[in-house]
Order: sequence, then C-alpha cells, then structure tokens
Amino acid sequence: MKTVLTSDPHGLFDSRPTFSHVASVLGPVRMIMTAGQVGTDANGQAPKDIKEQYSLAFRNLERCLEATGATVADIVKLVYYIVDYDPNNRLHVEPLTQFLRGHRPATTLVPVPCLARPAYKFEVEAYVAIPQSGTKTVDVVVVGAGLSGLKAAYDVQKAGFSVAVVEARDRVGGKTWSVEHMEGDAKFVDRGAAWINDTNQTEVYALAQALGLNLVVQNTTGNVVQQDTEGKVSQFLYGATPTGLGTAAVDDMVRLRDAAEAACQALDIHDPVRTGGHLDSLTFEEWIRSVGGGVTALASATVWTRAMLGMEPSEMSALFFLNYCKSGGGLLQMRSDRKDGGQYLRFERGTQSLSLGLLSLLKEGTVTLSSPVQSITQTDGLVKVVSARGDFVCKRVIVSVPTPLYKEIAFSPPLPAAKAALASANRLGFINKVIVRYAAPWWHQHGLCGMLQSFAKYSPISVTRDSSVASKGQYSLTCFVAGSAGREASKLSKEERFRVVTEQIQATLGGGKPAPAPLGFEEHEWAHDQWAQGCPCPAAPPGAMTQYEHALRSIHGKVHFVGTETAHEWKGYMDGALRSGIRGGGEVVSALSMPKL
Amino acid sequence: MKTVLTSDPHGLFDSRPTFSHVASVLGPVRMIMTAGQVGTDANGQAPKDIKEQYSLAFRNLERCLEATGATVADIVKLVYYIVDYDPNNRLHVEPLTQFLRGHRPATTLVPVPCLARPAYKFEVEAYVAIPQSGTKTVDVVVVGAGLSGLKAAYDVQKAGFSVAVVEARDRVGGKTWSVEHMEGDAKFVDRGAAWINDTNQTEVYALAQALGLNLVVQNTTGNVVQQDTEGKVSQFLYGATPTGLGTAAVDDMVRLRDAAEAACQALDIHDPVRTGGHLDSLTFEEWIRSVGGGVTALASATVWTRAMLGMEPSEMSALFFLNYCKSGGGLLQMRSDRKDGGQYLRFERGTQSLSLGLLSLLKEGTVTLSSPVQSITQTDGLVKVVSARGDFVCKRVIVSVPTPLYKEIAFSPPLPAAKAALASANRLGFINKVIVRYAAPWWHQHGLCGMLQSFAKYSPISVTRDSSVASKGQYSLTCFVAGSAGREASKLSKEERFRVVTEQIQATLGGGKPAPAPLGFEEHEWAHDQWAQGCPCPAAPPGAMTQYEHALRSIHGKVHFVGTETAHEWKGYMDGALRSGIRGGGEVVSALSMPKL
Repeated sequence: MKTVLTSDPHGLFDSRPTFSHVASVLGPVRMIMTAGQVGTDANGQAPKDIKEQYSLAFRNLERCLEATGATVADIVKLVYYIVDYDPNNRLHVEPLTQFLRGHRPATTLVPVPCLARPAYKFEVEAYVAIPQSGTKTVDVVVVGAGLSGLKAAYDVQKAGFSVAVVEARDRVGGKTWSVEHMEGDAKFVDRGAAWINDTNQTEVYALAQALGLNLVVQNTTGNVVQQDTEGKVSQFLYGATPTGLGTAAVDDMVRLRDAAEAACQALDIHDPVRTGGHLDSLTFEEWIRSVGGGVTALASATVWTRAMLGMEPSEMSALFFLNYCKSGGGLLQMRSDRKDGGQYLRFERGTQSLSLGLLSLLKEGTVTLSSPVQSITQTDGLVKVVSARGDFVCKRVIVSVPTPLYKEIAFSPPLPAAKAALASANRLGFINKVIVRYAAPWWHQHGLCGMLQSFAKYSPISVTRDSSVASKGQYSLTCFVAGSAGREASKLSKEERFRVVTEQIQATLGGGKPAPAPLGFEEHEWAHDQWAQGCPCPAAPPGAMTQYEHALRSIHGKVHFVGTETAHEWKGYMDGALRSGIRGGGEVVSALSMPKL
Repeated sequence: MKTVLTSDPHGLFDSRPTFSHVASVLGPVRMIMTAGQVGTDANGQAPKDIKEQYSLAFRNLERCLEATGATVADIVKLVYYIVDYDPNNRLHVEPLTQFLRGHRPATTLVPVPCLARPAYKFEVEAYVAIPQSGTKTVDVVVVGAGLSGLKAAYDVQKAGFSVAVVEARDRVGGKTWSVEHMEGDAKFVDRGAAWINDTNQTEVYALAQALGLNLVVQNTTGNVVQQDTEGKVSQFLYGATPTGLGTAAVDDMVRLRDAAEAACQALDIHDPVRTGGHLDSLTFEEWIRSVGGGVTALASATVWTRAMLGMEPSEMSALFFLNYCKSGGGLLQMRSDRKDGGQYLRFERGTQSLSLGLLSLLKEGTVTLSSPVQSITQTDGLVKVVSARGDFVCKRVIVSVPTPLYKEIAFSPPLPAAKAALASANRLGFINKVIVRYAAPWWHQHGLCGMLQSFAKYSPISVTRDSSVASKGQYSLTCFVAGSAGREASKLSKEERFRVVTEQIQATLGGGKPAPAPLGFEEHEWAHDQWAQGCPCPAAPPGAMTQYEHALRSIHGKVHFVGTETAHEWKGYMDGALRSGIRGGGEVVSALSMPKL
C-alpha cells in the first residue's frame, strides 16, 4: 500500500515532473527525517564540479533512505538549498529527476548565500514516511535473509515453530546475488558468491540437489596466464607451476605455499587459538617473512588474500588466515578449481537460486523485505525486535548479519563486551567482481582456461576466472578487483574502471592483441553496500582471535548468532553459511523444545 | 478535538500574535507537507506587487489545505522564505495574521537572496497534522454531502443499512449554499442553486413540503430590461418579445427559439444518442448557424448557455444542450420563471435548507465533514474508502461528486476506460452569481421585475433576476456573471468586479440614473472552488455523448455514481440531484438486499 499520496490542488500551477504541491501521509507510518545531505564523498570531500556535487548529494540521500529501509516512494517532502542558484540554469533538475524515478513529493527550493562549508554548493533534506505493519508475535525472528538466516528459518519452521525473517534489503540472498544480462534471457552472472563443490561442501551440495538446481563445472582446461611483479606475461598449464616467473621466484613461491599448507594443517578448526595461538601475534605478512618468503612469495600470498578475503597479507592475523584456509580443508583445497576444491561448480541460474529456493520452502509471508532491524530488546522473558516496516515480539532471535554489522542494531541489554569487541575488531575486505561479458569464449582459441593470476604492482585485477555458462550462451570473465588494488580502482569512475580492466585483459589473456569488444559489464562494490560493508567474510587482525574467538558463537540471552564466519568448516563460503544456519536453528529449536520447569 | 497544541516555554520572548515557539501534535494524525507556495496565480504568473504576492501565496497555501481536508488550525509549522527582507517593514505580518485567524503554529522566517524564479519574492511551506478517527465499518459510504449524496444516504439508511457520508467541504449542501447578510438576520441569499417549481419538479417540491420550508414566488411583474449587442437599452413586458431590438433581430431570435424547442422536443431523454445522434457531431453554435441563426439569435443563445451552464454555445455539443433543455421539459419551460418553469419558486432560508433538512433526518454522526476522499479500493468483496480524517470499510460506495472531479479520487481497480474518458471529456462552466443587496427593491418603482437580459459584447452580466425575500426584508439582484464574460470579470479584483457590475445595473435597470447604493455584495467563483471546479453541471463537447453516454450511470464493481448530471429529468437542477440520489440509493439497497446464493 502506498503511504505517501501526492496531489495537486485545483487552480495551482502545473507541478510536473519533479514535485507535487501536497503530500499526505496515509496509514500507520514511521517518520524519518534526514540531515541536509551535501555533495561529499565518503571522506567528506566536496568535488569542485557542481554537477558531481548534485549527484553525490542524491547518492548520500539514497544511502540515508536505504539505511532506514525507506524507498524513494516513501519521501513526503524534499527541501533543497542551492548556492549561486541560477533560475535559467537549473542544474538540480536532471539529477533530481533521475533520483525520484517518477515519484513527486512536495518540495521547496531555497537559494542560499552559502552552506555550512565554503565548498558545499548544494544540500537536500528529506522527510520520509515508512508504512508500518502492526506488531507481530512469532516464536522466532531471524534477522537477515541471506543463506544462513534462511536456512535457520527453514529448520526452525520445519520443527513446528512460527518464524519471521526480517531483511534489510529489497531482496533475499545476502551475498548470493545473481542478475540476468537482459531480463528473462536466463544468462545469469553472480555479483557475489559463485562456487561450490560436490564432495566436502556437503550442506550446500545437498541443498542444490534438493532444489534440483543445474550445476556447471568450472573450466580448467588450458593455460593460466601469469603476470609477474613487473607486469611481464607468461603462461603455464592449469595445475602446474608458473615456470615463466624464473626458477628463483618459483622456488620462493612454492616454499611459501608448502609452509602455509603445513601450518594450516596443524590447526584444529574447533580450537584454533589453543592449537595456533603463537600465530596470532603477527600479521600474515610478518609470518611470510618469518618463514623466509621473498618478493614473489609475498606477491603470491597477496593474490590469495585479495581473492579470498579482499585484503592484504598485512591486514590480518596469520592465525586467522591459516585457520580460514583450514576451514576449507587447507590452502590448496580452498584455492583449487577442481574436484574437492573451493571453486569446482557453479550454478546455471546463479547462486541466488539457492536463496530463492529456500524462500520458496518457507510459508508465505514469512519474510519482510526492506525492513532493517533497528533494535533488539530483551525484557520479561520476551524479545522485541523493532524493524523499519514493523515490530515483532518473539521468544528467540537469530541474528545472521556479519559480525562487523552488529553495530547497526541497538541491543538491549547491550552485547557482552567480548562479542562487541570481536565485532569491532573484525574487518571486512574489498572485493569487486567485475564481470566482463562476451559474445563467445574467445580465450579458448588462445588455448587459455580463462584464468589470469597477476602479481603486477599497478594492475587492478588480481585473478580472473571463466564464469561462462555455455548451455545458456552466457560467456564472461569474472575479474577480482580486490584488496588495496580494488580500493584504488574504486576511486575511478565506473567507465574508467571498466576501461582499465579491459586493458589488463587485453594485455594478458588477449596476448596484447585487441580482444573482442565486451557486450557489457557487471559489478558490485560490496564495501560500499550499506548491508555488506565489505565481503566475503570478516577477518581478524593479530590478537583478536586470542582475546575474543570464544565469543564468536556465544548466545546473548535469547539471541543467537549465525553467519558464514561463525562456521567451523568452509568459513566465508556458502557451505559455511548453511552450516552456521543449521547450528543456530538447532540451538533455538532445542531451547524452545525444553520442558518448562 | 484539537490536534495541534501550541505553547511558549517560560523565558522565551513573546511570540504573539503570529506564532508559538512550540507546536505539539496530539493523538492519531495524518501528516501533510506542502511544497513551498509562492505568490502566483493559476497561470503561474507572479504579480509585480509584493503585497499581492503575499496574499496569493497564502491563498495557494489555503488551497493546499482545503484540497487535503486540513484547516488552518491543523498547521503545526510554517516556514517563510523572504527575498529583500526588511526587518523594519515586515510586509508578511498582515497577510499572515489574516491567514492564521488566531492560530499560532511554530514558524521560522528565512531571508533568502532569491527564490526559484526571479519574480518570486515570498514563499511559504506548511507542515500539517489532520486528526484521524479510526477505521469505521459501515454498509455504505456516500462520497459527498450535496443533495444527491444526502438523498441517497437517507434512502439507504431508511432501508435499514448503516451509512457514512464523507464530505470534502466543511459544510453540507454542495452547490446549495445559502448565507445570511449578518449572522442571525435570516436574510439569506443563495450563492449556488436557487430555484424550483411545484409541478414537474416533484422530488424537490416533495422534500421542501416534507421539511416544511417556506417558499417565495419569483417576481415576474413588470418589465424586463434588454441590452442589445451594442449595449443599447430597451424594455419589454416579462413574457412578451423584446420588440426594442427591431423586427429583424426579433425574428432571428424567435426563429432560433422555436427551432431549438422543436429539436429538443424530438429527443428521448432516456436515449438521447439514439434519437439525436446527428446533433452530437457539431457544437451548439454550429447548429445555430446551420438553422440560419444570425447575430441576435447567437447573442440570445449565448445568454442561455451562460446562465444555464456557464459556457459559450461553441463549447458544447448541440445534442448535449438540447437534451439538457429537454430534461427540464424543453427550452421554454427550463428558462421560464413562471408556474411549471425552472425558476418559479425560491426558499425563504435559501436552498441549503433542503440539505440541512436532509442532514437533520440522518442519524447523528452519519456525516464526516472536511474529509476529502482520497482513494476507493475494492478488494476481497469489500471496499476501502480512505478520507482525510478517517478510513472506512464498507460493502457499497455511492460517489456523488461531479464527473470531472472523479480524477481527485484514486480508484483501485481504476475506473473503466469509458467512464474515465467521460469524466475527462466533460467540462464545467463558469458562473459567478454576484448578488447585490439593497435596502429596498428600487427597481419596482421603475416598473421593472428585476430581470436584465444582456446581449452586449463587453458587459459582465448576461442576466439578472430579483432574488428578494420581501417577508424577511431581504432585497437583492442576482447577476449572472458567466461564461467567457464571467471569466473575464474574474480577472478583475473583487472590488473592480463589483464596481463594473454596479455600473451595468445602473446603466440598465437604473435607467442611466444613479441607483441606490448597495448594502453589500455576495459572490462565489465556483470555478475556483476546489470541490466544484465549475458549475452548475458538466457539459459534453461534440462526440463525447456518442462515445461515452452509456457509461454515465454505469456501476463500477461495488461503486455507484449519482449527481445531477446523471439524472434523466432536470439535469443541473436540484430536482435532478435528488432523482439521481433516489436512483443510486435504490441500486445499493437492492444490491444489499439480494439473497446470497
């Protein structure tokens, strides 16, 4: 139901296309008011270009809406403040029209001599009304409709309890997010999670089988292209060693790989701190140097941490990284694209089909979308969950948001100190999968499998993989633009970023000759996403695991915590997410099934 | 109940008379926010005179309030933006004080360098809270408390069903609106509908009798004053022909009158399209020329269409006009002020006493005022009606607003295409009855009945009639300032308009000598009224009846439609309104009385 009804009284001048003279708020709503949003970037810098300021201001306002679960259609009123306003050159109209997408709230335009800072030339504030469903009473509320939350909800519902899943985004799936090139063409690519296997990832494979989803084997036939630290290109057969780097470099690399594999195999994933506590006092980079790793070893390790966690080896504890690898059976297995490896199979319709499949198994009306949870309050033996579009009273809550996002929810009583410290110590990495679509898999003709591995200091891409689905005629290369290289590329405009990515593909997989022109690009900067703030999995700096690991899965009163980073096996993977959901759902079912004394 | 509670904290400076430091919103409310309202007319033009801009801006804000069912007392907060603000010459205070009528919302005054357009010097925006009664459940909701709606509501209630009448205005009566000269002096004049008869207007006469209302016979004793196309004045006895126009002109006029009478008598009011479809392809003016009408014939017809529909002969289909006449028994009968004619009797206390009488017959609490209906939604066999001050759930709805105002209501499912097309094709005319009050009926001493009929090209008045009620000492001339002459006069200020009207009275009924000074004036520009948008009755352009007439009374699911234009007999008159109410009420009663299968 529409909450904001706009109208134009008889006899007032035509207000189309950007506003209405009157906006009425219908039905029960939650009112939201924003601060004036100015045209600054994430660092608070306002660009000189006034048009850029306009578009940043509207982007910032969009973020305010998203963070509260509001949509543009929920805006009742906008007030603009414009410096150097020129009625003959109304620069705000175009970005405003784009922002509003046909909605016409009441507005006021206020020319002003200046704004809070001399650089600010435009400011916009919003009054917003979000429709409210009444308070619902259920046994269990699950916060977040990603794989872990949906799986927990499904298990709890199957056990006979009533469940509400409350999701901040306007879709289910969390970091499983698959999009078609053109609507209905079934050529899906994955903006987030993409791979599973059918042997040791038992939970995700079982779900895929249960849902009857078609899988695609990752292509590993052909050569890998290797870029060395100076950007020089060579090739090697997938699975072999990159001999083109030179003997010394290869030795450096292989030595580190074997040391890391041995170190992670020594860990107990059920008690990493006891079995590897000494590894938690140094960063992974420090540990690499401590085992004699040189320039190539570090470059190789940088490809691992960027592609696996979106971070640099200097940004995480050695224990964290090695235990992370061990959760997937070890460094070699986690990094492998073959049978038993982390990247063996993909989904014909993308990984979101897992989430959509789980959704279809839930009772109708279980999931509320676009409704970020704002507070979780435990009183009198019950839990009250306040979300943007309605409140819930329940017996148990399962929180499935990433640990660093616990700060977005006001817990009362507050989270225990160790859990709060864990949540703020853990950091989310930067991975942007730039997916380049092509009419055909032209790299096959070059004898390549589609994988590029780059040690080059100044290149945006660390790794590429063939992400084609030949059965549907979907041909693409997925380029990991990650870690500090990803953050650098993020400063470019989208067009420039796509250009440098295409250039690197041409210089490497293309053999320096012009490659066929892309059909299009897909990307998602998860680090800029309000409800991800990074991906795929939070990583711990030195010392954090030693101090807080015990609080990772601890229950807070009647509030339980799931999410892929809380899994023992396949952390950061979809299999880990499902396993954590099973654990959290199980905790809640047994708590609710206990006889009352 | 007051929704906005204003207060002034101890120790803050005196905020009287125009604002309060704090405004609280009490109880359940609907929030309304307006766009900044500037001092422009309906064409978006801002006058040079800054004082005029202030008053236009407040008028426009008033329109925003009215369109949403809000009153000035519902304003929580006002913000003013003033260009060239001079603290020593606070021009906004006077119009603001007038606008607020004692209410003192929270306000902020913001001097600005300019506004959205260079011509704008003042802008005001409002935050408004309208009190909400909860959702009520009734059998039937009637939209609109004019005569047709009240009659339908009464009939449905009498049949034993529960009814809510929801009215946009702050009064009942629609276009029956009678006002006293000074409160309590019982000297009523009618701003809208005024006349009935006691023979063929059986429904309205029966209601008047049932309510015991005193009637007054229209005065037709004495001469009519005739102005020719050049403004030259002559006289003729009421009921005779205006010989002063000259033989040729009178022949032209009489020929048209007889042709029109014959043409309308040939129509079947129950099937005008079948019996007169050929008349729907041309305007009434084209038809006049087609039957040989000359200058005087057209001037005469212009008086008819202006006084009867507020429009020019060129603005409506010939079939529409002739069928309209036939609905009142024919051109001659509809235009007659004598026994059996359209203008035979008036009401001592004005025609609103009919509406107030119907209101008194309804159960207490049936009518909700100041509550425009915003949407009508049919789902699951029920109808939800959302109005400004509360919502309703019911089994059937009767919409009694004029067809061109259907656009003010969001119907879901939407109106059928033909009904929507009919609503947007039909046009409302412009009639402003300027009522000039006098201490005595001085025109009697000139041997005049009080009627002026003007063919003059540049005069504001087309027709006048004596609208006195001698028994109460109420003496007045009602001047029809209508059609394009009315629209022209509307561009003048009220004072100028009253001056030109008085001058025309003096030049005609006054015989060129100074007539006694008026005691006062009354008027209402229905075309500028949010809930009328014109009067008395929508008219169809050529082709519209042929295409859409079949949809005029068609039922839309569980929503029924009444209103004087939907009557077969006495369209545009109060009798037609009542007849349509009887029809609509009957439709609903029989639908609700049907046994459920």
